[in-house]
Order: sequence, then C-alpha cells, then structure tokens
Amino acid sequence: MTFFKTLAATAVGLTFLAGSALAQECAPSKWGADDELGSANLVSPERTLEASKLIKQGKSVPLGIVIDSSTPAFPPRGLSLQVVQPNQQGGQKLFAFNGNYNDDLMQLWLGIGSQIDGLGHLGENGLYYNCLDEKEISQITGLTKLGTHNIPPLVGRGVVIDMTKHFGVPALEAGQFFTAADIQEAAKAQGVEIREGDVVLFYTGWTDTKLESDPVAWVSGEPGTSEDAAEWLAAQNVMAVGSDTWGLDVVPPEKEGRPFYGHVILLKKNGIYILETMNTGLLVRDGVTEFMFVLGQARVRGTVQMIINPVALY
Amino acid sequence: MTFFKTLAATAVGLTFLAGSALAQECAPSKWGADDELGSANLVSPERTLEASKLIKQGKSVPLGIVIDSSTPAFPPRGLSLQVVQPNQQGGQKLFAFNGNYNDDLMQLWLGIGSQIDGLGHLGENGLYYNCLDEKEISQITGLTKLGTHNIPPLVGRGVVIDMTKHFGVPALEAGQFFTAADIQEAAKAQGVEIREGDVVLFYTGWTDTKLESDPVAWVSGEPGTSEDAAEWLAAQNVMAVGSDTWGLDVVPPEKEGRPFYGHVILLKKNGIYILETMNTGLLVRDGVTEFMFVLGQARVRGTVQMIINPVALY
Amino acid sequence: MTFFKTLAATAVGLTFLAGSALAQECAPSKWGADDELGSANLVSPERTLEASKLIKQGKSVPLGIVIDSSTPAFPPRGLSLQVVQPNQQGGQKLFAFNGNYNDDLMQLWLGIGSQIDGLGHLGENGLYYNCLDEKEISQITGLTKLGTHNIPPLVGRGVVIDMTKHFGVPALEAGQFFTAADIQEAAKAQGVEIREGDVVLFYTGWTDTKLESDPVAWVSGEPGTSEDAAEWLAAQNVMAVGSDTWGLDVVPPEKEGRPFYGHVILLKKNGIYILETMNTGLLVRDGVTEFMFVLGQARVRGTVQMIINPVALY
Amino acid sequence: MTFFKTLAATAVGLTFLAGSALAQECAPSKWGADDELGSANLVSPERTLEASKLIKQGKSVPLGIVIDSSTPAFPPRGLSLQVVQPNQQGGQKLFAFNGNYNDDLMQLWLGIGSQIDGLGHLGENGLYYNCLDEKEISQITGLTKLGTHNIPPLVGRGVVIDMTKHFGVPALEAGQFFTAADIQEAAKAQGVEIREGDVVLFYTGWTDTKLESDPVAWVSGEPGTSEDAAEWLAAQNVMAVGSDTWGLDVVPPEKEGRPFYGHVILLKKNGIYILETMNTGLLVRDGVTEFMFVLGQARVRGTVQMIINPVALY
Repeated sequence: MTFFKTLAATAVGLTFLAGSALAQECAPSKWGADDELGSANLVSPERTLEASKLIKQGKSVPLGIVIDSSTPAFPPRGLSLQVVQPNQQGGQKLFAFNGNYNDDLMQLWLGIGSQIDGLGHLGENGLYYNCLDEKEISQITGLTKLGTHNIPPLVGRGVVIDMTKHFGVPALEAGQFFTAADIQEAAKAQGVEIREGDVVLFYTGWTDTKLESDPVAWVSGEPGTSEDAAEWLAAQNVMAVGSDTWGLDVVPPEKEGRPFYGHVILLKKNGIYILETMNTGLLVRDGVTEFMFVLGQARVRGTVQMIINPVALY
Repeated sequence: MTFFKTLAATAVGLTFLAGSALAQECAPSKWGADDELGSANLVSPERTLEASKLIKQGKSVPLGIVIDSSTPAFPPRGLSLQVVQPNQQGGQKLFAFNGNYNDDLMQLWLGIGSQIDGLGHLGENGLYYNCLDEKEISQITGLTKLGTHNIPPLVGRGVVIDMTKHFGVPALEAGQFFTAADIQEAAKAQGVEIREGDVVLFYTGWTDTKLESDPVAWVSGEPGTSEDAAEWLAAQNVMAVGSDTWGLDVVPPEKEGRPFYGHVILLKKNGIYILETMNTGLLVRDGVTEFMFVLGQARVRGTVQMIINPVALY
Repeated sequence: MTFFKTLAATAVGLTFLAGSALAQECAPSKWGADDELGSANLVSPERTLEASKLIKQGKSVPLGIVIDSSTPAFPPRGLSLQVVQPNQQGGQKLFAFNGNYNDDLMQLWLGIGSQIDGLGHLGENGLYYNCLDEKEISQITGLTKLGTHNIPPLVGRGVVIDMTKHFGVPALEAGQFFTAADIQEAAKAQGVEIREGDVVLFYTGWTDTKLESDPVAWVSGEPGTSEDAAEWLAAQNVMAVGSDTWGLDVVPPEKEGRPFYGHVILLKKNGIYILETMNTGLLVRDGVTEFMFVLGQARVRGTVQMIINPVALY
Repeated sequence: MTFFKTLAATAVGLTFLAGSALAQECAPSKWGADDELGSANLVSPERTLEASKLIKQGKSVPLGIVIDSSTPAFPPRGLSLQVVQPNQQGGQKLFAFNGNYNDDLMQLWLGIGSQIDGLGHLGENGLYYNCLDEKEISQITGLTKLGTHNIPPLVGRGVVIDMTKHFGVPALEAGQFFTAADIQEAAKAQGVEIREGDVVLFYTGWTDTKLESDPVAWVSGEPGTSEDAAEWLAAQNVMAVGSDTWGLDVVPPEKEGRPFYGHVILLKKNGIYILETMNTGLLVRDGVTEFMFVLGQARVRGTVQMIINPVALY
C-alpha cells in the first residue's frame, strides 16, 4: 500500500495549491494554529469546581435519548443491531460452568439521535475549524485531525432555556426560529445567566411532541436557532450549544439557501461543539435551569460525530 | 412478518418448559423479580451528593481509551470506520455558502476497548441476571430485557486500587490473579475504603505496558480478579467493578475450565456492572484514590455492551 | 485466542454427546458420508453438453432481480449500500491524469432477493445435510462445512413450469400451494419433461404482480410447493428447485406448524439446492420451457446463502 | 427529506457549470449518448450461439476465487461475515418439526477478490463512461447511472492467453508489463484469435504463486497490461478484459504517475468491462484457449463493482 499512499500523497500535494488559495477565508483559532479542541479548552479546574457546586439535590439525568433501527435520521443515515451467541449454536454451553453469553454488533451512522458534532463535521469553502482543509483531514478511514476521540470530557456548567415558555406554546413549530434577542429575553425571564464556558441547551418541545407521533415530520424540519443566535452564543464564549432537535439550526432555514449555517458559525468559525437531540424536557419538567454537565463520549479514532448521552447533575 | 412471529412465539412457548426446569438454579434479584437494573439501583441522591464532594481539584479524566480498527479484541470482534462526504463528490459545495461536511459510519462489535458489560452479557445454564432466560431475551435484533440503553447514568463514588504497588511490580502478568485478601490488603495499605454503591477500579499496568507493545499478548491473556475476589466485591454491594484489562477476570483462569466466572458472579448473580479497559493509569499517576465517577453510555435499544468513556472527577 | 478456542472446543466435545443421540434421525448422503455438495454432484460433462444444445436462439436472460435497500426481506434481513470516493474529498483528482474513482461498500444479509440456499441453511433436530451437526459447522465467522463457496458452478438443463397457466389465473395467491400432481399435470400439459439433474423453476406470477405493488404482502406470504411436491421433486433427482417467490414453500404453510418444511426435504434430506426469487416471468413471456442454466455464485468462504443472478440460455 | 434533496439538487445544478466545461474532454459513446452498457451491447444471439459451440468437453470451471476476511484487498477494502441462528438462542428449535436454520450477514467492500469493474468505477477529469459526470451519478446511496445491476449477463466467447508461457517464466513479476506486441505475439504462438465481443483473459501466474505465499506482496504490486495493450485491446472491440491479478494494469505502473490508466482506457473511453482476480490458471492447466464465458453478477442497484464468479464452459 505504500505505493498507493505515496502516489496519493503526491496528488494531495498538487491539489493543495488550490486549497491554499482559500486560506484567506479563515482565521486561525484563538487557541493557536495547532489547536484541534476549540472550546473544549474552556474546561478548567476552576469551572469544574464551580460546576460541581450545582449538584444540590444529588440528581442525575441522562440527556441522551434511546435510539434504534426505527429512529428517523438525516439521510442516508441508519442503524442496525444484531445480538448473537457465538459458539453456542444448538444450545451449547461454554466452559465447565455451562456458561452462555450474548455479544452485539452494529452497523450505524454516527449522526443518529443524541450526538455530538465534532469540529470536523461542517465547514465552508473546503475548510473546517482552524483552517483545516478537507483535502488534508477528511480521509476515508477517519479524520486525521479534529476526530471526536480527541475531545477531553466536556465538563462544566450547563444551563437550559425553555423556548416554549418564551413563546407560550407547548412546542415550537418547524421553521420557527429564535434569535439572539429571544434567547436573551428568555434567559432573563427564566433567571438564567449565560457565562463563558457554559453548555447552553434549549428546550423547544420538538422531540417530546413529534419524535414518536410523527417521525417523518420530526426529521423533515425543526425549530431552532437563527444565524444571529449562533453568532451571539459564540460571542459569549460558550463551550457547547445543544437542543432537543436533530440539528439545532432552524429548518427550513431562516435565510434561503443557508440551512445549517449556524453549524458553520459554531463549529468552524468558533470551535464550539453542537449537541443534538438533547433530552432537555427532563430538566424543564424538573424545574432545573442550571446543572453540572458531564460528557465522556466513546473514543473511536477519527470519528466526525459520536452518539452520546451526557449527564446532567444537580 | 406477523405470521413468522406468531409461529416463533409458539416455538418459544414450547421450549420454555425446558427453560423453567432451570429456574431453581437462580435466585430472583434483591431489587425485585421485575428488576432489570441491578446495582444501578444504588445510584441515589445521597451518594451522588457525597460523591460530588470528591471534586476537589476540579480535574476531569477520561477513563476510556482510544480505539480503532487495529485495536485487538476478543474474537470475532472488530471495528471499521468510514468518513464520507455525501453529495460532495467532485468537489461540490452545498448550499449558498459553499458548505462542506463529513459524515461517518461504522461497523463494529460493541465489546471493543473501553466498554460496559450489561447484565445480559454473561450467564450460566441459559439464565442471565434475575433469572432471565436467554430464550426469552436474547433476540437477534436486540435484547428485549437488560439492554444497556436502560441503565441510568452510573454516578457515584469511584475508587482505584493499585495492584502493581501491592505486588511491587510495574505490571502484573497474564494469569496473575488477585484475591479478596489481596484487594483488602492493598486497599488498606493505600488508604482506600470500599463502600456500598462504589465503582471499584483496579490498576494492573496491563494495558499501559502491553496494548501497544504487544497487542497479541494483550488480548490473549490478562491479570485479574480471582473468583473469591469477585465474590467479596459483590458482598460489599458495589455498583460496578472495572480494570485496565480487556476482561477483568484473570486469563488463563484461576480454576481450570472456569474462565470469566467472575463475570457470572458479578453480572448474573449480583447485578453488578463490569467496566473493561478502564484507563486507570491516569488516576494512579496523579495520586488519586477516590473520585466522582460519571458514566452516561450512548443508548441504543437492546445492546448487550456499549463502548464507553466514563469521566473521573476529583 | 488459542486459549479460548481450546476451551470452546472442549465444550463442544462435551455437548456432542447430546448431538450424537440425534444421529439416528438422519441418513448419510448417497454421495458419501463426506459429501458437502449434494446435488451439485449431478453436474456432469454429459449433462452440460446436452444442456448446451438447448441454446438455439442465442438468447441469455438474467434470472436475478434487482435489489436495493427497499427490497422487502425475511426479517431481520436488510441491505445498505454506500458509494464513496476515497482520497478525493474536496474535488481532489488522483495521479498525473486527474483520475477519479468510485468504490462501494455494503452491509447486507445474504438472504435478500434472488438467492441460493446452501445446504447449511435449513435443517431439523440440529442437523443439516449429510448429518452435519449445527454444533460443529455453524460458527459465527462462517460455516465450516456446506459453505456456498464450495458449490461448483451449477450448470445443466433448466425447465420452467407455468403454474399460472395450470390454474388459469394471472397469479397464484399467498397460501395457494401446488402438489406433485399439479406439477406433473402442468408439466405434461406444457410439454415439459423433468429429468435427473435438472434445475426446475416455477412461475407463479407472485413477484411480477406483488413485489412492487404491495411489498409488505409480497414478503408476508407466498404461493408455493406443498410437502409432497418437494418430495416428488426430490425423487426425480433434480439439481435445484426454484420459484419466483422469496421462499419456494407455500406460506402460510399447507400443514399447520410446518412452514418451510419443503426446505428440509430438499436441502437437508436430499441435498437439493433452492433458488429463490427467480425472475421466471421473463422465460414464460418468451415462450421458453427448457434452457441451459448457468450459475456461478460469488464465493465467500462459509456463507450460508448468496445473492445470485443465474443465466438462462436458449 | 424533500427539503434537503431540493437544496442539494440546486447545489448540483450550480456546480454543473464547472462540469460542462470539461465536456469537451470526452466523446459520447458509439452506442449512443444515453448508453450505460458499453461493450455489453456486444452480447448478441449470433455471438452467443457461436460461443455455445465451444462447449465440447462439457466442462465448467469457476473463474472466481474464494475470498474471506483475510483476503488482501486494495485499502481500505475489507470483508466481515457472520453466520447466526435467529430465534434459536439457547438451543430452541423452530416450528412443529424442530427446525434449525443459519442466516448470514456481511459487511464488505465490493472490490475484493474476483470482481467486475462497472463503467462507473474509474474515470478522469470528473467524468466516467459516456461523459457521465461524477457530480451527477456518484451518489452516496448508489450510482444513479452505470450501476452494475444494469449489466445484462455477459455471455460470449472467452479466450485465455498465457503470458507465463510467452515470457518463459512460472509467473510474471510485479511491475512486469506486457504490451500490445506481447499480446499479439503470445496469441499467435498459442493459436488464439482475438475477436470482436470476446472476453479476453490473461494468465500471469501472479495469484497462483503469490496470493497464499505472500499476500502483502500480492496486493502491493502486480504484473499487467501496459497502456498500449489496453489501447490495442480496446481497438479489437472486445467485451471485457481480465487477468489473474487484483487490478489488471501493471503496478508499479509502466509510466510514472499513471497507475491504472488502462482502467481509464477500457472503462471510461471504451466502455469495456474489467474482470479482476480471474482464476485463469484452471484453464491454462487444462490446456484450454477458448471457451464460452457466462457471467451473471448479483444485481444490487447502484453498485460500482460486484464480487463475481464467471463460468467458463468448454
């Protein structure tokens, strides 16, 4: 394979000329030109200690939903699981103690259900976070940079803002967006302060009301952030932004032809992680607005996204 | 499909006669005959509050290792990842803003690298935890009971016991086991108290010294717990037991013909979770013996195991 | 892994006692106690030469249908395909000549659409063809005997019998079965002689009329052979039997509680291959009753079934 | 999904401007601007009848090799198979007759072992056969044109040319190429006439001598055709060209920076199929030079390649 890799590397070298022409369209990260972690740099002993003080009732809540082969997902994503009993066909038992065991294998796309978008998920003009060129990092066998396996545990203060309360509805509609002003107003009314390093989560009611009742509608659109909302959140230097929708950004988009541009603002321009299909209804119904957020995502080298289940502690 | 399922159900019904004959070989769970959670019932507000006080330095450490297609695993387990760029072939950019994105898919067995063993992983005489019969729960499309998606976040006090210090070696050898007495002695010498509801982790040096240097040896054997160690840990009512090895129990086994019997003791008989390939070297080298343990495993319905990355906070 | 394999082998050894108790329920193959090929032994220079003379018009017809991710299949079977462009992300071209290429990967169950059932597919009492015990051959990584990779090209005389003509309907209904007498009557009326070594195919109209119009109905039932039909076909020493249905046998079954028993008769008891979802409508509409049949199935070691596309030449 | 597809279509539309600029670099197919089949158009009743007369001894030979998870393949290609027993865990039998069955699933890349390269496999400047643009046809869920499922059975006259005899060696070396002159000379010496519509196969000894003994070497290089050989074969209007190597073209390539350019000549410029890892040693050792070639590849919509096992009849 050395042969092919050498040739391929040469080809990559040649095409990089085109790549570098685009370099002006990006600014290096404030965390340094070599940084791959973005806002995960905001995890600090001080913030972790502070966040730990938010554990007052001793409660812990899973922010991940349960997914299976019928969970709707952005095409062509899907999931298939098999539970098997190796070496036990025909009722064979194993070892001297008549043992039996189940093993399991999956074929899945990682962008299903509750997921973290790594900084190599969405970009523009061929570039991802910190001017990293798709030609360089997006290898078929795994991202060579920005893989989610590199992200340290995202630990810090989490806040949840209830947009249904803000709009006075049981659930926002697909296409209904909330702006920076909406977020600030809602936060103020709900007594939530957004601080540097926070994990900011929204509750729109979308998943609670639509995922089971109308899965096709659930995945075909969603309420979400406007572009200026993403810009404003980025300006607060938050660590991650998430919602109880499959894609955070409003769909259909606020501005024609610019769906998911909030992803570019957060991931690519600011190195801020996106958390999708967060089960924030559990927090809202429990009257919680701030909590300690702990996410340890399974670490598979070079993954773009990962299915996750962050824990809210309060 | 209704047709086949009906017939299959009938077949299951018939064979259950044989199944129930074995029922005497198991005792219902102390958490009730319907319980599927086992020691996860030990998560409580009190313990979570107590554990949160162990966060003193504000540090957070990932206990999961990074895995990829070359990570050795119990056969026939394996992993394959592809990073792709849907709709972008030929350099196409998406949307009005020239967007680009990576997506990723995997084919993997879930028992690779850092993993949690659910209570439906290992049993004996056809039964799993709480007398659940393999004939009933071990469906090809996913466990109908004991799936890891049901496990609430495992949150509590974690302790790590350094067995290399106990034995005065850089790393234990494959086949070298430690007993209940060893654990008690080591814990005492290291100032570690093991309490109900704890997550008890061991450091053997096995993964730190062997995984990279000799992956075939790493997966072909391991140091680990003896049967009486598993019994004793279960008697302490711990929530989970883990180690920096791929299978916790000593391999080759302490008693001939009884490999992995500690799995039966912990999982099946006591509903205690097993955590494998925990990166405990990070804790030992940082001089930590107790910490807050937080695990939110990705929730896929009916999974037997899950690749994980618990977070140690201290 | 040697360790585990040794232990597992011992376990297998022990349980074989139970296995051998069943041995009386099977008769060794007429092709010898070591035979794995069954009726593929009927391929002979004489028959191949004879069959070649059936090529009179110079026509060739594919008997396989086109399948994709939406093709209904016996649960939990499914299929997923991805076409990717390795090393070309961002519009990169390869090599000095600006090359581009597509590659493709699939995750699939092999029993989808047009398929051959190998002799290790269906059995009874734990035994497959030639008294081969499931405990011995049905390994998780592939059949150790009876894998379809071993089957030589099935080459010989093919005949098609039009059961819609026999019953005077456009298509048979689900649950409608045809008996040995029906087959003999239809064959006689249609001028078809069934000979030793033949590949006998049926046309029921089921796939032509139902697969697209009502895929759920298509896979939930089917017209097909009765048990005595399978017995009679086996008595003719045919090489393979197929139909334009997903499972050959009538579903719901002729006899309660005995679905797919024709599979046992053909595969296990007689070593006769089954060909499913054969596109026999093409032959019937072209007025053909006999032809040269050529099947070269892709050879993957240890496969139970294989997706196929036999060629009818006439 | 309609939403995304509409947007994506627009994006495709925009980028097609760039695509059409390249249109001059290709010539429409001689079989028409809509043609997707290329040289498969050469299958004709006359040629099929002629070819059937080559069946003289009544022999049939599989040209596909047996592959498994250890078969070396062009990276990142791989294969994994699982044989399972749904609904039979714990030794359950199915139905009134105590039935048992095996089912099988695979995760595989289609370019492994014996394979056909469809006309959408390799191109240049973003174009494939008949000026088809990668931007249009190379969808992640399958090729929208040039899928191998569309190829009719490739049936016709096959010839095999023994290049080891030509060079007087047991096997050619990696990097050793044969030219148009070599082919013509060898063909003449071996009494082989190459005609329009033929399937032309080569024997180099590469797979017979290297696949098992040195699998890494086998896949790292290969003897094969020079560029002028591909040009000359195309000029003979053959239907397909194959060899007992994994990639037909010589590797390392004849001309620096132009590996696999024979693929472009055959597939893209001339619509001629490529057959890889053909087990031609069987023919050579049996003294055969011409035969009837029959290939019915399994038909999965939108596949680029397919694992195959053509049958040689003589």
